[in-house]
Amino acid sequence: MRTNPLPVDAALSTRFRQVRGLSVDLAAPLSDADATIQSMDDASPAKWHLAHVTWFFETFVLRDHVPGYRLHDERWPFLFNSYYEAEGVRHARPSRGMLSRPSLDEVLAYRRAVDAALLDALPGLSPEGQALVQLGCHHEEQHQELLLTDILHHFSVNPLQPAVWPGDPKVPVAMPGPIGWIEGVVGDVEIGRSIVQNSQDFSYDCEGPRHRTVSHPHAIADRTVTNGEWAAFIADGGYRTPTHWLSDGWAWVQAQGIEAPLYWQRDGNGEGWTRFGLDGRRPIDPAAPVTHISFFEADAYASWAGARLPTEFEWEAAAAAHDPAGGNQLDSAGAVEPRPSTGGPAFFGDVWEWTGSSYRPYPGFRAAEGAVGEYNGKFMSGQFVLRGGSCATPRGHARASYRNFFYPHQRWQFTGLRLAKDL
Amino acid sequence: MRTNPLPVDAALSTRFRQVRGLSVDLAAPLSDADATIQSMDDASPAKWHLAHVTWFFETFVLRDHVPGYRLHDERWPFLFNSYYEAEGVRHARPSRGMLSRPSLDEVLAYRRAVDAALLDALPGLSPEGQALVQLGCHHEEQHQELLLTDILHHFSVNPLQPAVWPGDPKVPVAMPGPIGWIEGVVGDVEIGRSIVQNSQDFSYDCEGPRHRTVSHPHAIADRTVTNGEWAAFIADGGYRTPTHWLSDGWAWVQAQGIEAPLYWQRDGNGEGWTRFGLDGRRPIDPAAPVTHISFFEADAYASWAGARLPTEFEWEAAAAAHDPAGGNQLDSAGAVEPRPSTGGPAFFGDVWEWTGSSYRPYPGFRAAEGAVGEYNGKFMSGQFVLRGGSCATPRGHARASYRNFFYPHQRWQFTGLRLAKDL
Amino acid sequence: MRTNPLPVDAALSTRFRQVRGLSVDLAAPLSDADATIQSMDDASPAKWHLAHVTWFFETFVLRDHVPGYRLHDERWPFLFNSYYEAEGVRHARPSRGMLSRPSLDEVLAYRRAVDAALLDALPGLSPEGQALVQLGCHHEEQHQELLLTDILHHFSVNPLQPAVWPGDPKVPVAMPGPIGWIEGVVGDVEIGRSIVQNSQDFSYDCEGPRHRTVSHPHAIADRTVTNGEWAAFIADGGYRTPTHWLSDGWAWVQAQGIEAPLYWQRDGNGEGWTRFGLDGRRPIDPAAPVTHISFFEADAYASWAGARLPTEFEWEAAAAAHDPAGGNQLDSAGAVEPRPSTGGPAFFGDVWEWTGSSYRPYPGFRAAEGAVGEYNGKFMSGQFVLRGGSCATPRGHARASYRNFFYPHQRWQFTGLRLAKDL
Amino acid sequence: MRTNPLPVDAALSTRFRQVRGLSVDLAAPLSDADATIQSMDDASPAKWHLAHVTWFFETFVLRDHVPGYRLHDERWPFLFNSYYEAEGVRHARPSRGMLSRPSLDEVLAYRRAVDAALLDALPGLSPEGQALVQLGCHHEEQHQELLLTDILHHFSVNPLQPAVWPGDPKVPVAMPGPIGWIEGVVGDVEIGRSIVQNSQDFSYDCEGPRHRTVSHPHAIADRTVTNGEWAAFIADGGYRTPTHWLSDGWAWVQAQGIEAPLYWQRDGNGEGWTRFGLDGRRPIDPAAPVTHISFFEADAYASWAGARLPTEFEWEAAAAAHDPAGGNQLDSAGAVEPRPSTGGPAFFGDVWEWTGSSYRPYPGFRAAEGAVGEYNGKFMSGQFVLRGGSCATPRGHARASYRNFFYPHQRWQFTGLRLAKDL
Repeated sequence: MRTNPLPVDAALSTRFRQVRGLSVDLAAPLSDADATIQSMDDASPAKWHLAHVTWFFETFVLRDHVPGYRLHDERWPFLFNSYYEAEGVRHARPSRGMLSRPSLDEVLAYRRAVDAALLDALPGLSPEGQALVQLGCHHEEQHQELLLTDILHHFSVNPLQPAVWPGDPKVPVAMPGPIGWIEGVVGDVEIGRSIVQNSQDFSYDCEGPRHRTVSHPHAIADRTVTNGEWAAFIADGGYRTPTHWLSDGWAWVQAQGIEAPLYWQRDGNGEGWTRFGLDGRRPIDPAAPVTHISFFEADAYASWAGARLPTEFEWEAAAAAHDPAGGNQLDSAGAVEPRPSTGGPAFFGDVWEWTGSSYRPYPGFRAAEGAVGEYNGKFMSGQFVLRGGSCATPRGHARASYRNFFYPHQRWQFTGLRLAKDL
Repeated sequence: MRTNPLPVDAALSTRFRQVRGLSVDLAAPLSDADATIQSMDDASPAKWHLAHVTWFFETFVLRDHVPGYRLHDERWPFLFNSYYEAEGVRHARPSRGMLSRPSLDEVLAYRRAVDAALLDALPGLSPEGQALVQLGCHHEEQHQELLLTDILHHFSVNPLQPAVWPGDPKVPVAMPGPIGWIEGVVGDVEIGRSIVQNSQDFSYDCEGPRHRTVSHPHAIADRTVTNGEWAAFIADGGYRTPTHWLSDGWAWVQAQGIEAPLYWQRDGNGEGWTRFGLDGRRPIDPAAPVTHISFFEADAYASWAGARLPTEFEWEAAAAAHDPAGGNQLDSAGAVEPRPSTGGPAFFGDVWEWTGSSYRPYPGFRAAEGAVGEYNGKFMSGQFVLRGGSCATPRGHARASYRNFFYPHQRWQFTGLRLAKDL
Repeated sequence: MRTNPLPVDAALSTRFRQVRGLSVDLAAPLSDADATIQSMDDASPAKWHLAHVTWFFETFVLRDHVPGYRLHDERWPFLFNSYYEAEGVRHARPSRGMLSRPSLDEVLAYRRAVDAALLDALPGLSPEGQALVQLGCHHEEQHQELLLTDILHHFSVNPLQPAVWPGDPKVPVAMPGPIGWIEGVVGDVEIGRSIVQNSQDFSYDCEGPRHRTVSHPHAIADRTVTNGEWAAFIADGGYRTPTHWLSDGWAWVQAQGIEAPLYWQRDGNGEGWTRFGLDGRRPIDPAAPVTHISFFEADAYASWAGARLPTEFEWEAAAAAHDPAGGNQLDSAGAVEPRPSTGGPAFFGDVWEWTGSSYRPYPGFRAAEGAVGEYNGKFMSGQFVLRGGSCATPRGHARASYRNFFYPHQRWQFTGLRLAKDL
Repeated sequence: MRTNPLPVDAALSTRFRQVRGLSVDLAAPLSDADATIQSMDDASPAKWHLAHVTWFFETFVLRDHVPGYRLHDERWPFLFNSYYEAEGVRHARPSRGMLSRPSLDEVLAYRRAVDAALLDALPGLSPEGQALVQLGCHHEEQHQELLLTDILHHFSVNPLQPAVWPGDPKVPVAMPGPIGWIEGVVGDVEIGRSIVQNSQDFSYDCEGPRHRTVSHPHAIADRTVTNGEWAAFIADGGYRTPTHWLSDGWAWVQAQGIEAPLYWQRDGNGEGWTRFGLDGRRPIDPAAPVTHISFFEADAYASWAGARLPTEFEWEAAAAAHDPAGGNQLDSAGAVEPRPSTGGPAFFGDVWEWTGSSYRPYPGFRAAEGAVGEYNGKFMSGQFVLRGGSCATPRGHARASYRNFFYPHQRWQFTGLRLAKDL
């Protein structure tokens, strides 16, 4: 029994159209072949992202909440389920790049068909169904960011180093001044958000329950670490000094031969560095936030700098006063990248910030019921929390309580760091 | 100093056009994405085959023998060199499937540009240059077969099991009668061909020098082993009985969980078998030659059958009297597959036949000079010789002295076996 | 300038002799060959443990604090340094089992020589040196437990399944009653210990600083889970139901084919279970605490049971009132194993208890200076905290604030679990 | 029905005692731990060799031919069967180093028990049984060589680089002169030996049947390649020039970082080379035959030298006139190694010589019946033939027709090479 369907409907329908439209825009420069390749196990083909987010709506909304709906293709759920065990067997993740069929055109047609069916069904959906549409929009926003970072990785391994989009001409920017330190609250702090999947005020289950924590004396930097600062870390032997590193991190550096952020290469004369981005290979901008670093690198840098990473609670407390919709985030398709800071302290945009917190449940956490309950809880081992949001995060997706998470060696996302220290 | 250029030119130009045209025909059903995927390290993308054979002509003929020729794209030799060390560093083989760029259209344009330049240059080419064109045509024919077997493998791993071409309706065929045994020559036998790279009478360096060998008392089967016979081997526990197998073969069976030829699956009720082919998944034809078996499987079958594999010399001596251009070989694009035999003894077509001979040099063998000298000699360890030619071998490519070679575990080619026994 | 050397000396010398003596007792049943084998990368040979703990005293006490001390053998630090990067290059960990030389006898002679030198030097040692002796004793106690668990693993892979010590006759014990739930404190709780490396009141750096935390409503079980309860989990399909498992845990179960705790095997008729212990292979005791389970298994069990693992803070708060020197812990050499509980609630002994807490630094944590600073801090990623102490933990070693840690897949220690739940 | 048992008995008993005694002598310097370690999958512990050859006699002679014989320990056949599938399941080869029990002493007691039982039974054994004793002696001689090469490998990975036996003082030896070339027979040559397992004139099944082959014009070197010549190959960039190498060989060099023979290291000042031997680490002797090289290296050297490896038939024809019991072979326990040549052309001793021939069956080959039929035939894929015999081959074991075989990358045996060339 929906009580006030119309306003919600209209907003939701608008939101749904906008989200779905952006995904198609992001894929616009991609050929069928571009959209088919999987360049590593951690990444997925662009075509797969476009289909998987559609499968999410088709399965959890249309199939489960729209009587009489018939699947677009009965063989496709096997291909486009990501990891929902409750939804049955599925295509092995490392084999996603083996699918030249269905083609990009067929996947785009699938999108259009599901969009039409869903928009048709929206006015009659139960609140639970509408909440799933809302969840699906947030889900798709996450995949928009992954689509960008995965296609960046894929293009980076092509020796031709193609650009996905043309880049802007680079204009020199003044280097940021030294880090300013913001003193954190000491004592009790409320953390997290308890409201889940409400269309007005969405958050994921892992962001709650909101609960009391204790904050100890500390300060947090007013900006993230820059490429220029990172180059100094390299020049000081940062990647060759085991005492800066966690034991697992040092093993990773040694085994993989790591000596710079992902996508960095020495330039021709061996003196400077270039990086690969959505606009191809270009010199690094020393004033811009460093990105494509692992947790291990972030932790080693902090150790080298005599500091540490903030906890996720310290970060959330500091960020709570800032506008999560500000900063350099994704508004439309194009060669996004972290950019030099121009204003005052910012906690959102440019790069996701590694925290020192393991991704574990909050007190009283309970996963949602049903298949969508596999969304977060089952990933709560071995990963670290990142906070903030990046240049590839759709604007509006981020918030202070948002918990992103990756394994400590992963770095193909737009990941960076902000320092903290004990007082 | 060419002595009779014109007739050679004309024939060569016709041959060149025919060979180049067939490759494009074979790729016609493929989308850009189809042509981009590499489904295993042993295979290459269709696009890569199309470009690599073109690179061969561009490098060894146009660049080396046509003054003033400018490369189509200076960055592409790095991508499309296969294994010629003398030609410098090259893109890692297992990464061939990472190249969405250049696109299939760009590769086809590359083909057209090189074709035009080569046909333009052909009348003025030295005999050495013409010999390289001839070599390049044979080289491309080899890649036509690989293109077919690689795309078959790629489509086989797609859960949708798409067909590359529609298949013919299958008509039941009478089962072949029992094997007839052909007694081999006893005593001295001349083996191999000494003529290399002459446009009238081409052979590869590894087929010579022609030399005397001794043949011991033996008989060779008048046909290859069929799917029906292979199903009996399976039913008799052939894949579970270690004493049939070479030690390396048994280790391979155990490690890979092998229990049938590649592309075979139990049918729905578990009683019969289906196979995957260029026309999709269909029931096996018990009368047709078994294919997609490894040397290890061929050897185990022969052991189970109380026989052995023929040596490559026994095979060549027996085949010398037969027409190498007969049998089921590749004439044009389409869903080729091994077919039931209909006439008398045949030694060419349907399936490559594993022999018991390691691929090693003949007495007095010398590799050709220059980069093309890497064509055969450096592969002479660890591989076994196959003789004959398959349904995917361009008609005219096979001959009695032809030595094909693969590692004993490989089976994605159209490989089969013919029995032999000591007398 | 030592202020009150004598009492400390005497106590320390007694303690040192006791600790050093127990290690030799534990190795007494081992042959040279027994003490040489490394049965997996995670384990070390018994001989290596005996030498490494000696190297610790020789390096950080004798070499650094006793003028004129000469190394027992200059080549041995390379062999017996475990992971101290500051101490230079060292023998690769997975190669520890390649050392038949030095022999067990030579290692025992090394122990005697270092013991004599250290006892000789002890009265004149600075407080810093004495603190290092104290640290070395605790360090050796940790390796005593590892020696036992490593030799257990090594003997378990021998098809002869030899016993290290004879076992006691097993007497049937009444099954424990249902779990009783102890309500936890709600609100502020002080956690951790700030005193480090004082001879009277030792703790590791990672146990501090003591700090305030917030405890949320919960209850904790009054005993650990038993073998009988675990058998019910197996019988209910616990290892085959993905929704019980963390994503990484399910991948581990699938990849490793896990279907029971380490060392469990179906008994002859397939109805019951046996386990391998220091006294060989015997039937499991359903009343005894389950052991040799990974964090992944512990978490899955808790999920299946509708509960969760306690946080390390919940555990510490509940354990604070209990005697850490009670329970089934290691007093002398012999076939120790977890035993059925006989008294009231116990928090120490039998099995280490997996908590739901990642091993990360407490607020304000700082690693110790110098090489011994590598003791704990650098392992703070990817591991989970265990609390309590096991049947193989030297009595006196455990305390409420003690933080043991292992990777979530590891289970060759005496690891078990205690349930908790939200209220 | 034995016809002339007594003379055979006496000789066989003497032979058996001698062979069995040498094995014990070879193991004399080894501790229990020395004899237990397995330093790589290709090698076995000394203890395992001592037990396995005993198992061979116990199984195929005592169990099968002596009524009423009871196994020494019923659990040991599982441990000490090497690869006889017909004898049932067995302990995994890479786990042979996990067996501290049974101890070396127990294995030596096993040897004594089986020796006594066999010597007791010998007079009454059937000719078939006696032939198996003869086979067992040859089998044990093969394992004597493996015991030496395996223990050499094991000691080489110990950073202490212990010597198994003390070495002799090295006296400088004149460098051998340039290679002399021996012209080979041209035309028909009889190769192989047809007599199998007769006590007077033993050979393995794979050495026959004797058969006619054709020899083509060639010459073979009168000595093997020396360490000094090999150092010149290294200095000329031999390991960095891909065109010298077979494709598989080059891949092996790249993947393993090979740059010198196994056990070679640059000496302290980086100008010369040392090698590790049974007498520890010492400078290479430039006049001695190079050893511990793979087939890939041998083939690359020959290519660099403008020559090739001899075929096994060319080698056998040239060696037939030489005394197989001459040269530097194993007479008793001690620090054997290849030594500079002092006399005329020699074909036996010092090092096994890689030939260019794949290990495949001769025409008409049939494996022996029963379990011992797994002795040779099943290894006939992927390996190359070596001829001659080494400093570690028991004198009397080698003969012109003897076919040793290893994979082309293996080099822990005393392997070397002799050049050949076409005429």
